[in-house]
Amino acid sequence: MQSLVKLYQVKANPPSLADNTGDLDRLKKALSVHLEGQNHVVPFSRIAPVSESFRQSGFKGFAVVVHHPNGHQLIDFYTKKPEFLVGMSLDLGTTHLEASLVDMITGKVLERAAVENGQLEFGADILARIHFAATKVGDKSGLDLLHERVIESIHKLAADLAERVKLKTSDIVAVSVSGNTTMAHFFLKQNPYHLCREPYIPVVNAPDPFQAFELGLDLHPAAIVWVMPSIGSYFGGDLISGILASGLDQQDKTCMLIDVGTNAEVVVGNRDWLIACAGAAGPALEGGVARMGMRAGIGAIEHCSIDPESGEFGYQTIGNTPARGICGSGVIDLVAGLYLARIIDIRGKFRPDQPQAAGRIIEQKDGPAYIVVPAEEAHEESPVLLSQVDIDALMRSKAAMYSILTTITNQVGVAFKDLHQIFVAGAFGKHISPRQAIVLGMLPDLSLDVYKSLGNSSLAGVEMMLIDESARERCREVAAKITYVELNVNQEFMIRFSGSRFIPHTDHTLFPSVPFHGES
Amino acid sequence: MQSLVKLYQVKANPPSLADNTGDLDRLKKALSVHLEGQNHVVPFSRIAPVSESFRQSGFKGFAVVVHHPNGHQLIDFYTKKPEFLVGMSLDLGTTHLEASLVDMITGKVLERAAVENGQLEFGADILARIHFAATKVGDKSGLDLLHERVIESIHKLAADLAERVKLKTSDIVAVSVSGNTTMAHFFLKQNPYHLCREPYIPVVNAPDPFQAFELGLDLHPAAIVWVMPSIGSYFGGDLISGILASGLDQQDKTCMLIDVGTNAEVVVGNRDWLIACAGAAGPALEGGVARMGMRAGIGAIEHCSIDPESGEFGYQTIGNTPARGICGSGVIDLVAGLYLARIIDIRGKFRPDQPQAAGRIIEQKDGPAYIVVPAEEAHEESPVLLSQVDIDALMRSKAAMYSILTTITNQVGVAFKDLHQIFVAGAFGKHISPRQAIVLGMLPDLSLDVYKSLGNSSLAGVEMMLIDESARERCREVAAKITYVELNVNQEFMIRFSGSRFIPHTDHTLFPSVPFHGES
Repeated sequence: MQSLVKLYQVKANPPSLADNTGDLDRLKKALSVHLEGQNHVVPFSRIAPVSESFRQSGFKGFAVVVHHPNGHQLIDFYTKKPEFLVGMSLDLGTTHLEASLVDMITGKVLERAAVENGQLEFGADILARIHFAATKVGDKSGLDLLHERVIESIHKLAADLAERVKLKTSDIVAVSVSGNTTMAHFFLKQNPYHLCREPYIPVVNAPDPFQAFELGLDLHPAAIVWVMPSIGSYFGGDLISGILASGLDQQDKTCMLIDVGTNAEVVVGNRDWLIACAGAAGPALEGGVARMGMRAGIGAIEHCSIDPESGEFGYQTIGNTPARGICGSGVIDLVAGLYLARIIDIRGKFRPDQPQAAGRIIEQKDGPAYIVVPAEEAHEESPVLLSQVDIDALMRSKAAMYSILTTITNQVGVAFKDLHQIFVAGAFGKHISPRQAIVLGMLPDLSLDVYKSLGNSSLAGVEMMLIDESARERCREVAAKITYVELNVNQEFMIRFSGSRFIPHTDHTLFPSVPFHGES
Repeated sequence: MQSLVKLYQVKANPPSLADNTGDLDRLKKALSVHLEGQNHVVPFSRIAPVSESFRQSGFKGFAVVVHHPNGHQLIDFYTKKPEFLVGMSLDLGTTHLEASLVDMITGKVLERAAVENGQLEFGADILARIHFAATKVGDKSGLDLLHERVIESIHKLAADLAERVKLKTSDIVAVSVSGNTTMAHFFLKQNPYHLCREPYIPVVNAPDPFQAFELGLDLHPAAIVWVMPSIGSYFGGDLISGILASGLDQQDKTCMLIDVGTNAEVVVGNRDWLIACAGAAGPALEGGVARMGMRAGIGAIEHCSIDPESGEFGYQTIGNTPARGICGSGVIDLVAGLYLARIIDIRGKFRPDQPQAAGRIIEQKDGPAYIVVPAEEAHEESPVLLSQVDIDALMRSKAAMYSILTTITNQVGVAFKDLHQIFVAGAFGKHISPRQAIVLGMLPDLSLDVYKSLGNSSLAGVEMMLIDESARERCREVAAKITYVELNVNQEFMIRFSGSRFIPHTDHTLFPSVPFHGES
């Protein structure tokens, strides 16, 4: 295990008239024995505290050294060996930030926590925030505010995590960060203007590691901040993190990694090559579009089923409380069930005359809707509905998803059936039933054991950064090796998208396991 | 010529959908061709300005790269090639700061300037300031104030120099600094407490280079600040600078370097070895002790002579204006003249009954004094006097000086006559007549062509730092190679000191060229 920050026990002879070397130089000399002559520097702001602590400890104790890729940094000196030497891993999600506290001595994850992204008030989605960044609010720019909010959210997480292990936030000596490219820009306080404008160029893909104080992070002032590199505006460090966590870059056989948020990001490859693309999958899958949509939280319908013959509806909510809404995985189950029960047709349109729909379809101002949970069963007697508009949004999302997968595999001449494994990252991977997604024609019709849920692989990847030098190497290699295909302007993608706007697909031979309810 | 900061002309392909590399990564890639694959980083605070300037320049222009010993730093990007790429060299003297502006493209010194050290109000000498540093003034420490003042003085110098070449101070992209160890501590805002307490240990000898903004220097924020390493509390970077400027470390034959300020610092050596020591020579030689003493400035008696037979007194002042006082070189000439004219004896005591002293000796409250310039000839009709107290101070200084030289040469078994060259640094070297110093027994009785005045070699050395990579290498080698002998506790030194408190010496055979006026 080669942690990003390490402790070295150091003992030097005390100064004397015969040996008048300066305190800091004395420490560096004693430390260099452990570093096998490798160069190490002391950041300017650390000269005074490090040398003072060394002197007060009687010229012996524990040196805290950042194994910086561009030369090691001696950032602190402890009299006693601390119980933990902690780093914080951070996944900067658009709606939530997740973090873990990792002990870099043992490599153990001590605690994990999440907090809502404080930027939400400035825009629910990334695009709204990019536009907000360019505005002025008093004497601050929108970017200033977005940056401040994400830093505040990080401080909340850090305080929470540190308290749980009885440490101070100033004990956190390393931070590894991943997030989509826009979140990384907000974090780094970089102008996101060009991210959403053709040809979609980030200010920076791979910032060099820097010190926490430079960003105003209230942790150890010289904590190293390591940000996962991005590949493009729509392919962020969170995906590089996912590649590392899944081991996609080390596979003998070709595999695929799918991460779905506001965008769907997909990587195909193996130890020899990696190709990636990203496309707008629509926020339906995040529970953002369906009017009753919500993120997977208390009261959300996570899974549901409709009996194809009787139309009987069964569901379960997170926390087993009265239903408040329906999350992404629930929507997929529901629409797949509606199709299998013939309550919607292959275009995703309601068929109100179907017996299975009896008493469940109501007319609203903007069209029909399916009563998922009637008012009397629902939270605060507010019925959970799925409207035609919601289904249409899901149809666009699932079409986008499948088109992305087809386009990228076609680009490298790999058939779906040749994929050894499909890793599904994030909340999407954790909650959805691949089977229902196959029914909808969102995921390819493959054996279910091909699909493997990863959980929060963005966080798992940055945890590896803190304790595994080879992972830090791999992240540079992956970023250098990966080929990115821009789908936003890909003609082939647009054609495939049209063909995918049916359940499961216009070419239903692609989905042999799914009953075809069209007129063929 | 390998300047510390260099310009590279860079041209990159503009971004496109087929090449969506981030702006900064694009620039780094284009630059790496020039750096032959050597690693280079962009400091965090420079990500935004550098990438923005690169974009606004149409992805072509001139990259400003610090050739940092621990990996290069890309710190700025210019659309057009600037006329100069300037660095500032700084000699932090106790009473004056001297600086030059160096063009790192051509290696030429563009301008030189000096300013009074703004710390003077907190103590004329170093020891007073060390004590002041530990006090509290309002909510600030004395150290804070001393640091602020030296930074202010540097800002004055920078503004003056930049204006002369029609640049802004923010165009200064490098700073090389030397000074005595205490001044370096004040500059770096490091606690000088242990510098003057046995065993005299600095906080730091060789700080790693850092960025100007980290010290609050109002220059280019990422200007590299390179501080000359010190060897000990009494042997500062100014001496390392002097070694480089004199080339002592490259000599085939053994030479000596003498720098006299409040302390006398001496180095003996050649390309193979270097040995150094320092001792309190007393401020007499800086013009600080003699009541009429002053630094070499307008109205100071720089040189003078007394006819040994008639006692006739001749002098010249700087600027040929009426005499205001007498500077170090003048005091040496004067006391040597007094001795040769037998107006003082070998102990430096007045002999008022000597005919050559007729009308020149007056009695004051604390003893006799010699009228150097009578009131009617002097500035503001204030006579210039040299008292017995002044002479006693000089006697201690000259004794210290000679004892230091004897002790160090004895330490390495080199006789004075074996010294190929004696470099005399600083204002002392520039103004004194070696012959008169020999008469006093301050410098060894050698042929005058052995002595070579260096001028401000502290400044000359740091100028080399900016434009000469081999000098930067040499400075590390010298600092590592030099052996420092602590004289403050050296018994041999104390014995020699007693023997040297006569003119020229108790053992007058050591000074065959000097008439002996004692009772032998």
